[in-house]
Amino acid sequence: MGCVTDEREARMRLSQLAEPGDERLGAALAASSACEVLARIEQDDHTLTGVQHYRARLGLAPIGQHDAWADGGGRYLVPGDGEWPTQLDHLGAAAPWGLFVVGAELRLAAARSVAIVGARAATQYGLHVASDLATDLAVRGWAVVSGGAYGIDAAAHRGALAGGGATIAALAFGIDVAYPRGHASLFARIRAEGGTLVSEFAPGCTPTKPRFLLRNRIIAALTRGTLVVEAAHRSGALNTAAVARRLGRPVLVVPGPVTSSMSVGCHRLARGDEPARLVTDASEVIEEVGMIGELADRSDPLRRVRDALDPMALRVLESMPAESAASVADLSVAAGVDAGATGGVLLRLVAAGLVRESSAGFVRVPGAADTVVRAQR
Amino acid sequence: MGCVTDEREARMRLSQLAEPGDERLGAALAASSACEVLARIEQDDHTLTGVQHYRARLGLAPIGQHDAWADGGGRYLVPGDGEWPTQLDHLGAAAPWGLFVVGAELRLAAARSVAIVGARAATQYGLHVASDLATDLAVRGWAVVSGGAYGIDAAAHRGALAGGGATIAALAFGIDVAYPRGHASLFARIRAEGGTLVSEFAPGCTPTKPRFLLRNRIIAALTRGTLVVEAAHRSGALNTAAVARRLGRPVLVVPGPVTSSMSVGCHRLARGDEPARLVTDASEVIEEVGMIGELADRSDPLRRVRDALDPMALRVLESMPAESAASVADLSVAAGVDAGATGGVLLRLVAAGLVRESSAGFVRVPGAADTVVRAQR
Repeated sequence: MGCVTDEREARMRLSQLAEPGDERLGAALAASSACEVLARIEQDDHTLTGVQHYRARLGLAPIGQHDAWADGGGRYLVPGDGEWPTQLDHLGAAAPWGLFVVGAELRLAAARSVAIVGARAATQYGLHVASDLATDLAVRGWAVVSGGAYGIDAAAHRGALAGGGATIAALAFGIDVAYPRGHASLFARIRAEGGTLVSEFAPGCTPTKPRFLLRNRIIAALTRGTLVVEAAHRSGALNTAAVARRLGRPVLVVPGPVTSSMSVGCHRLARGDEPARLVTDASEVIEEVGMIGELADRSDPLRRVRDALDPMALRVLESMPAESAASVADLSVAAGVDAGATGGVLLRLVAAGLVRESSAGFVRVPGAADTVVRAQR
Repeated sequence: MGCVTDEREARMRLSQLAEPGDERLGAALAASSACEVLARIEQDDHTLTGVQHYRARLGLAPIGQHDAWADGGGRYLVPGDGEWPTQLDHLGAAAPWGLFVVGAELRLAAARSVAIVGARAATQYGLHVASDLATDLAVRGWAVVSGGAYGIDAAAHRGALAGGGATIAALAFGIDVAYPRGHASLFARIRAEGGTLVSEFAPGCTPTKPRFLLRNRIIAALTRGTLVVEAAHRSGALNTAAVARRLGRPVLVVPGPVTSSMSVGCHRLARGDEPARLVTDASEVIEEVGMIGELADRSDPLRRVRDALDPMALRVLESMPAESAASVADLSVAAGVDAGATGGVLLRLVAAGLVRESSAGFVRVPGAADTVVRAQR
């Protein structure tokens, strides 16, 4: 069967035909190309389980990479792209097979990010705490990921923007849709101020209840940990926390008055069999989500960041000038590491907080490599 | 050397000459009688370490068992007395060598008790929560132990009284002293309404800062667990919690707003290396401090209370009439267990919540023995 279109366009088409997180389709995509999977759907190949369901949407007009939604920098990412956040692959068969993205580069921000989620019907207390935490995290170079909803989500996005940091809104609908309507200006502000909108759902898609749940797994999987600020007894935020736990990422909660129904979900998480960790400020959040993550040797609980670096990362770091910025090309030559690998190492060093990216290039963060740290659990 | 007085009076005298918790004196009392230790002090026996310090107070007029402080039921307990709370002996060399007590029987109430402690400068939130928790614990048959201070302590005592339950004020001064002055009526009310005042300090003793710390170990050691409701960064309540932890008793905290300085101490305890458990209501407190304590077989985490009873306790329990009250003498005959042992077993059954004591005698708590429980950690 010949492929009628390219792989990226085939995946875009699949995002229309199937709901994201469909594990049967995920398995099919792991075994063959998207072009092949799409052809099997078009040919009504009954050896593809669930094919009749995918065919129900064949009448939808295919989305193009250059349609109106892509204006202003909208793009469709697939695994293998340089901008693809590989931590999403930890979702296994439920991993997304593509992401519609608009705004700033996704991978770098997400590599050093925390999810801040919680109730729509948040209290003034919760809104205040979410906003303050997000600002403080942004100031310390952490991106804040949330869901773009009213309440805690919006306070987290706005707080991160106020701190001059990156914020990522992972949406349960198309990146060209404003939901709630009242958040059209928030989404525009996120795009304009260095943030990113991301969605698995095709442009034009409207939200449904299952889509919010599907979206939650993206929030949990993109980030180093999920912080719940306020959540009622039943709350979507608890679902995001459950996914984070399944992925082995830290689940954190902000405590609140025991008399507040909006803190019941947080307290329940903190009392569970695998208790969520209680946090009261941004430095505690950073302590919990780990500073050096994948760079740390887990067997040695206390060591300098420098000692935890692999030899190539150490070579790139030590080839950096003390105070001025350097380009990837400069550093590749200085370290004697090929340019592609140098770029990858720099990405990890930025994620680890050892290097900052400025408009002039990459700059070493003074003293960061000599910090004594606890390895991430 | 001849003993000039009886053992109880010798210990009363020692309580004047040394500060409670004095481990050298504790060791001397473990090795010989109080009469002998007192004689060594009076004879300036330099083989008793610290004798010169104890002699500094020899000029104080000795307290008598029948002085004014004992009016209205005041008494001096020593280890071995039927009313002595043997859990205090877990303090080892720092265990009290005697207790001045006034009000209701101490041992029975303390056997099924929780400490509720916290800030003097509590917020309305903290006062409300402390009072509510104490009332709910009292209603469920748990005694509330606290320190008689302003703030959380007073709210806890008053809440327990409002719930018709026992409350024990462990004081850092004589049981005939009202400190703060404004609590004279609270102490009178505790005595009048089935509560107990207890102190290691001789009648007439006034509080000092070290005495509050010494008193804290009594609060921690008397109870099944210590609950901190509100505590600032530095707070005496954290000292009580530290003693409870050293004794292996659960340390519990009530969460609060992260914006409240009065919850900082609670949140710090919940984030420690051995995190305190967060609780939000009385049933969670009871879940944490354990229902059957010393009766439970620790190796089997889930079983019926009945299965955890030793054969003698089971025989006494099963000899009880289904609905009416029975006296110790009746039950001794019915169970074929001698009266002294029957009394001891009943004390443990009451402490375990399987039996209630009413004015007509002991009554079985319906269904309690068939509850499935988790053994106390």
